[in-house]
Parts: sequence; C-alpha cells; structure tokens
Amino acid sequence: MAKNVPEVVARRLPRYYRYLGEQLEQGVTKISSRALSEKMRVTASQIRQDLNCFGGFGQQGYGYNVYELHEKIGEILGLNDCYRIIVIGAGNVGRAVANYAGFRRRGFVIEALFDNDPNLIGGRINGIPILDASEIGAYCRENSPQIAAIAVPGHAAEAVVEELEESGILGIWNFSHADLNCGIPVETVHMSDSLMNLSYRIKNNEQ
Amino acid sequence: MAKNVPEVVARRLPRYYRYLGEQLEQGVTKISSRALSEKMRVTASQIRQDLNCFGGFGQQGYGYNVYELHEKIGEILGLNDCYRIIVIGAGNVGRAVANYAGFRRRGFVIEALFDNDPNLIGGRINGIPILDASEIGAYCRENSPQIAAIAVPGHAAEAVVEELEESGILGIWNFSHADLNCGIPVETVHMSDSLMNLSYRIKNNEQ
Repeated sequence: MAKNVPEVVARRLPRYYRYLGEQLEQGVTKISSRALSEKMRVTASQIRQDLNCFGGFGQQGYGYNVYELHEKIGEILGLNDCYRIIVIGAGNVGRAVANYAGFRRRGFVIEALFDNDPNLIGGRINGIPILDASEIGAYCRENSPQIAAIAVPGHAAEAVVEELEESGILGIWNFSHADLNCGIPVETVHMSDSLMNLSYRIKNNEQ
Repeated sequence: MAKNVPEVVARRLPRYYRYLGEQLEQGVTKISSRALSEKMRVTASQIRQDLNCFGGFGQQGYGYNVYELHEKIGEILGLNDCYRIIVIGAGNVGRAVANYAGFRRRGFVIEALFDNDPNLIGGRINGIPILDASEIGAYCRENSPQIAAIAVPGHAAEAVVEELEESGILGIWNFSHADLNCGIPVETVHMSDSLMNLSYRIKNNEQ
C-alpha cells in the first residue's frame, strides 16, 4: 500500500506526525482537517487527500481522532520500530547529531560515533563512545545498526558509504556536501542549499 | 521576473549551483542538459524547463556555458550579495553552524553568537564571539545583520523570532523544532523530519 504513496505526500507525513503529537500533549482528542491545515499551511482538501492515500481516517462531520491518526502515521513512518544509529565523524556536525535531543523518544538511538582522530577516539559525547573509524565494518557486522549518519567532509563520504553499504547498513542520513549515489536510501540534510534558498527568498521578498 | 518562478524550481537552483561550481573547479567549460541531469537525478527536459524560467541560457547543439550559468544562478539566488549572520544559541547546533565551513566563500559571514548561559558568554567559537542574549535587539539595530540562525529549543524560538523581526532581521534560518510563523522568510532545517523520512523509506525499501 505505502509503495504507491507519492513522495511529496510521504514527505508531509513527519509534519502531520509532529503536529498531532503536540495536540496530544495538549489533551486535544479530535481535530478537523481545517484546524490541521491552518497550522501547517497546507489546504484542508490537501490534507484529506493526503490522508486518504493511506485509507481514510476521518469521519464526516467529526474530524480525526488525534490519537489514532498519530499512531497510524507513526506506523506508516516506521516509528514503531527501533532504529539504532551510528555517526561517522565526531566533529561539530557529528557532535550536534549525537547531542540532539528528541531522537530517543521516537525510537532512534545513537549507539556509537566513529572518527579517525586519535585525540577523539576513546572519548564520549553525550555518553556515546567514540570508536576508531577503521573498525566501522567490523562493528556493523557484529552489531547490525540500521542507520549511519555521515558527518565527514564530502570528499571522504563516498568511500565511507561504500563500506557501510557492504556492511549491511539500511539507510544513510547524510550531512556531508556530497550527493551520494548508492543502493540504499539516502536522506540528505543540505545546510548550504537551505541557506541558498533563504538567500533567494530574502532577495525576492518571499515569505 | 524571479517572482514567477515556481517554488519547486527555485528549490532546485542550489543543487544546480553546487554542481556547476564543482564542474568549474574541474575545468569543465560547457555542459549538456543531459550531463547535468545524470548527476542530479532530474530529467534533461526538466532541467531545460527549469532554466528557461529565468530566460534560456543554453544554445541548441552546444549545451550550457558552465561559467555563465553558474554566475547567473548565483545572481538569481542572491549570492552576489554578502549576508551577515548571527546565531542565536551557542549549544551544539549553534556550534555546528558557527563551525560550518564553506559559508564564507559563498558570501555568508557569521559575525556573532548569542546565548543566555553566563559560562558561555564572552567565549568564542571558531573565532566568533558569544554575546549576551539580552543584547540581541540592540546588536541588530546597531549592526543590521540580515540573517539569524535559530539554534535554541522550540519553546524559546517564538519569542526570539518576534524580537528579531522587530529588530530588522530579513530572514530566519531555523534549526529549532518549532514551525515558525512570521512576516519574514523562514527556512527550516528539520532534522527530525528528515530522520522520519529516512525511516519511512527504509521501511518501504525505497531508494
């Protein structure tokens, strides 16, 4: 089923999920597509259409059951599974990832960092050990983490990813500048592209 | 002119810009839309269509002049201007932003960080001073930075953004979890959404 979901729809699901989670925390138990849409700058009909891709959750004239919808989207996003993450590179970006709060409660656990700097190896960030980068392959084969965050310079990223793919990693969370081509899902956080988009919007006075 | 560019097209421009920059560094002076498309996973006809939004740059049977196209896209993105950036929050995310290489050569200069932790105020990160968060408004009115990067927790972000907007900031680069609604452009780097997208794609075995 989920295979047929258009990518643009799938990309909106994390926002629905976050917003519904906030509503739950505030004790909201039902919500209309219009209320959802106002917060998220998506039209109400778009929301109804998006959620219909996964089977309609809403009841006419009642709106959505927040708890059920939140659970269901979490399930679709795979958030009921626990993902173990390793971080390659213990520089500033790797540190930021390792320190990022809010992962664990969604089932994402960072279990190790890797670096090739002897001054860093053996240390800890946020309680997470920094291991020798030469042991990445052996570590993966032994511990089977699912996700690797790439926080190394672009020129080093390709070789690391090749090794990770061979070692059974299921997905790459890419913070390097490199556009990585490989046989497993790559999700890139492109800081410089984001900054250029902001520049464009400032120049063109767009909100 | 640029006002009429669809957002999806504008969002692809940073990638074109980066890739063309890499080609220039390698001494490539002309390029076909097909060669551009192979690297960037966009169809060649899409590329031609995208670039036509800004006026056609290519010559039939010759391809694109890499230097001219790179310059032109940089101009459209506003990268010929110099942007001065302040970073609100000197925690791990703020540190990562302050240490991020590759900003300066594109005309983005980080000139100050702000925090409310007395242990951090007065220090420096990557040579950039950490100032007292209570002075943000005064600093902005005096120095007129254009961009503020928000690296504070979500619950603190709204109030900070309000103050920044009143102080004349032109755009917000948001690293907090909050969906910020304000009258100036906000570009959000949503780490947790990106991780949820990756989870979805792993679960559904999508590349």
